[in-house]
Amino acid sequence: MDLKPYIRSIADFPKPGIMFRDITPMLKSADAMKEVIRQMAEPFRQSGVTSVLAAEARGFVFGAPLAMELGCAFVPVRKPGKLPGETQQFQYDLEYGSDTLEIHSDAITAGDRVLLVDDLLATGGTIEACLNLARQQEATVVGAAFVIELTFLKGRDRLDGIDVVSLLQYATEDADE
Amino acid sequence: MDLKPYIRSIADFPKPGIMFRDITPMLKSADAMKEVIRQMAEPFRQSGVTSVLAAEARGFVFGAPLAMELGCAFVPVRKPGKLPGETQQFQYDLEYGSDTLEIHSDAITAGDRVLLVDDLLATGGTIEACLNLARQQEATVVGAAFVIELTFLKGRDRLDGIDVVSLLQYATEDADE
Repeated sequence: MDLKPYIRSIADFPKPGIMFRDITPMLKSADAMKEVIRQMAEPFRQSGVTSVLAAEARGFVFGAPLAMELGCAFVPVRKPGKLPGETQQFQYDLEYGSDTLEIHSDAITAGDRVLLVDDLLATGGTIEACLNLARQQEATVVGAAFVIELTFLKGRDRLDGIDVVSLLQYATEDADE
Repeated sequence: MDLKPYIRSIADFPKPGIMFRDITPMLKSADAMKEVIRQMAEPFRQSGVTSVLAAEARGFVFGAPLAMELGCAFVPVRKPGKLPGETQQFQYDLEYGSDTLEIHSDAITAGDRVLLVDDLLATGGTIEACLNLARQQEATVVGAAFVIELTFLKGRDRLDGIDVVSLLQYATEDADE
C-alpha cells in the first residue's frame, strides 16, 4: 500500500516558504491508518516495548493505537498544566524562545523500555524533549517511530543511539515530492 | 472487565473543589483500552458511521482508535491556527470568556454520518461545539460516545436528539465514587 498519496502538501503554512505535509487525508482512511500503525509497530515487535510516549496533539493520534497494537502502555506528553498528578518537566529551545513538556512522574520508571512516537520528524526539538523526559526517569529508550520524516532538517541527528524509523521521507520543500 | 479501577480521582484539579477524573491509568493498560474502544464502538456498529469527530487533545486518544475500529474516517477538531487547509470555525461560551474550535472545511459533507467522541462529558461545551461544527457542514450526527460522564453536570441535556453513550458515570465530586 502506497501511503504517500494520503499526505497533502500545503504551501506557506504555518508561514511563508514552508511546505506543510498534512496528514488529515490519511486520518480519513481507516485502511491507511491500519497499515500505518502496522508499519510503525513492525520494527519494534521484538523490542520489549513497555511504553509508547507521544506528545500532544497529533502524536496522540498515532501513539494511542500503536500502544494498543504493541500491547503496552500509552504515556501522554503534555503542555504544562494539563496533567493532574505530580509531573516531571523538560524545557527545550525553539527557534525563538522555549517550550516546556511534561509527563506524570509515575508514568515511566527505570525498568521501562520506551518507544517515542510522533506524526512528523522535522528539526527534532519535540522528540528530543520526549527522549530527555524518558531518560530523566531512567527508562531505556529503544527507538522512535514517525509517519513522516523531513530528511533535509536532519532531526534524526538529535536522536543519538536509538533506532529511528519513518514511513515516508521528504528531501525537499517541493510540492511534487 | 470493570473499567472504573483504571480511573484515578485527583482532588482540587484544575482548581479547588473539583475532583478530576484522570484517565492516564487507563491509557497504561492496553487491555483496558481495547475494552474501552470495543464498548464505545458497540452501540454504533449498525449506525453507518462515516466519520468520528474528536477534539484535541484527549479526544484524539480515543477518537483515532475508535475510527479504526469502526472502519471510518477520523476527523480532528482543533484549536484555531493548527489545521493547514481551509477551515470552518465554531465559537462557544465558557464559564468566563469564549473559545473557538475548527475543522477542515472539506473534512465532512452533507452525506456523512458523524459520531462525536471525547474522553469526558462534563458541562458539554466542547462536544456541543463539535455537534454544531458537524451540523454547519450539514452532516448527520448519529451520536456521541464518552469514556466518562459527570452526570451531575447534565451535559447530556445539551446534546438533544442524538444517541449519547458513556461507559462510566460519576454522580458526585466524591473521591470514593
